[in-house]
Amino acid sequence: MSKRKYTIGVDFGTESGRAVLVDVSNGKEIATAVYPYKNRVIDEFLPGTKIRLEPDWALQDPEDYIRTFRSTVPAVLKKTKIDPADVIGVGIDFTACTMLPVKADGTPLCVIPEYRHHPHAWVKLWKHHAAQPEADKINATARQMGEKWLARYGGKISSEWFFSKTLQILDEAPEIYNAADRFIEAADWVVWQLTGEETRNACTAGYKALWSKRDGFPSNDYYAALDPRLANVVQEKLSQRIAPLGGRAGRITSRAAHFTGLKPGTAVAVANVDAHVSVPAATVVEAGRMVMVMGTSICHMVVGTNERIIEGMCGYVEDGIIPGYFGYEAGQSGVGDIFAWFVDHAVPPEYHAAAKKRKIDLHKSLELEAAKLKPGESGLLALDWWNGNRSTLVDVDLTGLLVGATLATKAPEIYRALIEATAFGTRVIVEAFDKNGVAVNELVACGGLPEKNKLLMQIYADVTGREIKVSSSTQTPALGAAMYGAVAAGRAAGGYDSIFEATPKMARLKKQSFKPIASNRQVYDQLYSEYLCLYNYFGRGENNVMKTLKKIKADALHQAWGD
Amino acid sequence: MSKRKYTIGVDFGTESGRAVLVDVSNGKEIATAVYPYKNRVIDEFLPGTKIRLEPDWALQDPEDYIRTFRSTVPAVLKKTKIDPADVIGVGIDFTACTMLPVKADGTPLCVIPEYRHHPHAWVKLWKHHAAQPEADKINATARQMGEKWLARYGGKISSEWFFSKTLQILDEAPEIYNAADRFIEAADWVVWQLTGEETRNACTAGYKALWSKRDGFPSNDYYAALDPRLANVVQEKLSQRIAPLGGRAGRITSRAAHFTGLKPGTAVAVANVDAHVSVPAATVVEAGRMVMVMGTSICHMVVGTNERIIEGMCGYVEDGIIPGYFGYEAGQSGVGDIFAWFVDHAVPPEYHAAAKKRKIDLHKSLELEAAKLKPGESGLLALDWWNGNRSTLVDVDLTGLLVGATLATKAPEIYRALIEATAFGTRVIVEAFDKNGVAVNELVACGGLPEKNKLLMQIYADVTGREIKVSSSTQTPALGAAMYGAVAAGRAAGGYDSIFEATPKMARLKKQSFKPIASNRQVYDQLYSEYLCLYNYFGRGENNVMKTLKKIKADALHQAWGD
Repeated sequence: MSKRKYTIGVDFGTESGRAVLVDVSNGKEIATAVYPYKNRVIDEFLPGTKIRLEPDWALQDPEDYIRTFRSTVPAVLKKTKIDPADVIGVGIDFTACTMLPVKADGTPLCVIPEYRHHPHAWVKLWKHHAAQPEADKINATARQMGEKWLARYGGKISSEWFFSKTLQILDEAPEIYNAADRFIEAADWVVWQLTGEETRNACTAGYKALWSKRDGFPSNDYYAALDPRLANVVQEKLSQRIAPLGGRAGRITSRAAHFTGLKPGTAVAVANVDAHVSVPAATVVEAGRMVMVMGTSICHMVVGTNERIIEGMCGYVEDGIIPGYFGYEAGQSGVGDIFAWFVDHAVPPEYHAAAKKRKIDLHKSLELEAAKLKPGESGLLALDWWNGNRSTLVDVDLTGLLVGATLATKAPEIYRALIEATAFGTRVIVEAFDKNGVAVNELVACGGLPEKNKLLMQIYADVTGREIKVSSSTQTPALGAAMYGAVAAGRAAGGYDSIFEATPKMARLKKQSFKPIASNRQVYDQLYSEYLCLYNYFGRGENNVMKTLKKIKADALHQAWGD
Repeated sequence: MSKRKYTIGVDFGTESGRAVLVDVSNGKEIATAVYPYKNRVIDEFLPGTKIRLEPDWALQDPEDYIRTFRSTVPAVLKKTKIDPADVIGVGIDFTACTMLPVKADGTPLCVIPEYRHHPHAWVKLWKHHAAQPEADKINATARQMGEKWLARYGGKISSEWFFSKTLQILDEAPEIYNAADRFIEAADWVVWQLTGEETRNACTAGYKALWSKRDGFPSNDYYAALDPRLANVVQEKLSQRIAPLGGRAGRITSRAAHFTGLKPGTAVAVANVDAHVSVPAATVVEAGRMVMVMGTSICHMVVGTNERIIEGMCGYVEDGIIPGYFGYEAGQSGVGDIFAWFVDHAVPPEYHAAAKKRKIDLHKSLELEAAKLKPGESGLLALDWWNGNRSTLVDVDLTGLLVGATLATKAPEIYRALIEATAFGTRVIVEAFDKNGVAVNELVACGGLPEKNKLLMQIYADVTGREIKVSSSTQTPALGAAMYGAVAAGRAAGGYDSIFEATPKMARLKKQSFKPIASNRQVYDQLYSEYLCLYNYFGRGENNVMKTLKKIKADALHQAWGD
């Protein structure tokens, strides 16, 4: 029997980076190390300056990514005392679209003194939302020109995406646009730092940068219509080498070996996105099983063998999740975030005190109280749009609604209604896929919520009428990255030759799953039909009160500032 | 100049009774005394027993009313050292419909040992809501028989009213029905205890017992259709002497002189209802000015010279508020109650702590925070139906709704949205009157809320587009009762010959009024149009989700109890 081999997955999150060292033979997570980014999310001032950012900006410091490698990879090696020679591969995953302008040699503009004080020189984090005017222009122009790629993204692209952010740089800081030799996903940039080679992963290219395997990028004519200076953006500013998922981007350089402690020549996987890399880590490499990454929001991913246009999804990309399949992605923009809002802003002191007394957190305490209620007993129904609706309505201006309140309504009832509302939101997405030719027979959950809230999981099973299995890993993105590290290394080096080979060995589910309870389903079917009615009434323009309220609010604030 | 004369108004509330001694010449409230009822609201067990009441029951003890006289009238006399000979009249007002079964001599059945352990022998308080099946039957039968009096009550009578409660006694306790010589309003019963004479005041007869000056009571045929045993209820169980408001019911007996400390022969006014008696106490004895009694709920009263059928009002009674006018009444079933619910159930600890630190109550603290917001700035809109909708929809099964919530929504914003929602509810009522021939040019507020919440008053002025004046008395019902005491005494005795004469002398408004601010009105007009759209959509059957949720809730509870 050959000696045990290991890979390392590095997951770059919003607030921190995390390395996990995994046993290639069985997927066991042997050691973990986390680096909280020194400059975290930069949304008020550029680090060390008094340069204030405008509202909706969110930046990061690329040096935090390098510090993540420097800190976490040596840490997991040290903890486990594993010989770096037995670490056969490295994979990374990243938030997306998180992008930055760099020079031809990969140097970020923001580390060059000349540009360091320019906000546009820094990394634009996924949740940088200041490029909405540019997204609007991209959408409107695409509609006018009948661009057929628009349908792949449910008819609308987001302000978070690659060309929205690129166009914002051009609009607001043409000098930065001109100084940049490349605009690159941070995911690809960190791989470049490890391998010395620039690649462009197919996942972010497809989901965030309008690329497809069959049609490539939108035409130069289209970009020229957005702005004549943008006509050759693809040729001038983007790497042309689109690297497929499951491929090897390159090998650890001597320089990277120095700061990671890994051996030069160690295989490095093509970069991936945190949500998408979770799919095989949640055991899914085939059609019919939807993965839900459940946390502050939910990302729903499912693969299918056929190309289908489905209303309001975030996008589908051929080979974008699992090679050989169309990868479909949808999402709910507020889930855990809504519960957190509730707990922070709408729970009276007695519940805080009771949780403290029981030495449990307030979420857990409310969950236990809410679990005492039968489905329907709260008399409440909510629309889960506190943070807008991503799928299927793709409308950030929709807002939250609660109906059914009486003088007897209590906090745990509202808490439960909010959970139920997010479950109904998931059901809309599941059915949009399932009824349109992308089968969803089973749900597999990963992320923070399944660990924390069993009531929520049961409600999701009851509402969707589907069994929900749960990934046994609590850090599926890092595990997924490590799995791709093993694939990048290949079987000859002690890894695997494909993600299909790696998954049954390295990914596992928990024994406990959540099965729908028939009597609950019956009640939730009734409530869901009421939810759908409100969903369509408020979400599809019959009553635009949510948008009108936002407009009136904006006018009020404008007036207030004008005073 | 003749010697100063005084009257005493006794206000019988839900939790306590209150006597106010008033200077007849100028309405000054010289002294007040309050008696908290020993047995308060009886809604769990009959006093001193283990006899449990069913849900929705609410009883009172008639001996608490006598104790109120015994305690408070001597107290105000003692405090002021006024010679009882200078107290020329007494008036009382009561909650309604609050009714009880008595023997021919006025003895309440519940003080007779034989009946003392029977819940139906006690006083049914206004908020006894267990007679809904009877109210439903009364309404259905009236509709079937085309009873024309039904239109006077907006097409539907309430479970709180006189015949709903009487029919419940007949249905559930025929032995009590048979043992009773009279069913009587508590208002009239306490006057009987003072005067030794049974009267029936026109106000409760009209608003609560289906009587009208022109048509009398419904026909015996109608009562027979409800239940053959009820055919002669009017002749057998009700006093036939309907006494007009402003009349004298009688004079203090020796017995009553003994327990009140008043002189035998002191004039006693015909009984009145707390809300209605507030109208002249708020200076209103003419058409065009609506009085709002603002507290846990709002009662809206306005008089007009013409008879008008207006959707969803609580009722109109000729001479029912001010002699010579049609008295119109409407209401909102939840106002202060909704704010209290919010403060109790939906405000996080930081606001409790901040209020404590500033040594103000939480309502005041939230009001101050909410006052910092511009109209429309919250981005929220609510339907104020936490306790159903009394006018104009007359539907207890409607529930509260909040729309516009985001992850940035904070408690003071919701608090303000709830205030605004109740103001929109008032505007619906004001406009229902004003557009249908009962002019509402000005609003006059009294009750607890105007004292407590200036932001609320300004919002009501802005939303309704009308100036709101405020009664200078903080205890308008008791003042109104004292005014009627002066009218019962008559000018010859040092009082007045009519309420029209008494009002300019005895009732006053505060100097400060609330005037609509044009820029606020403009924003509220926009919000009101959104409110109306939701009001009609959810309130008039287009989307019955509120009722469906109540039904699903009832099913869930039924199932839970069945387990």
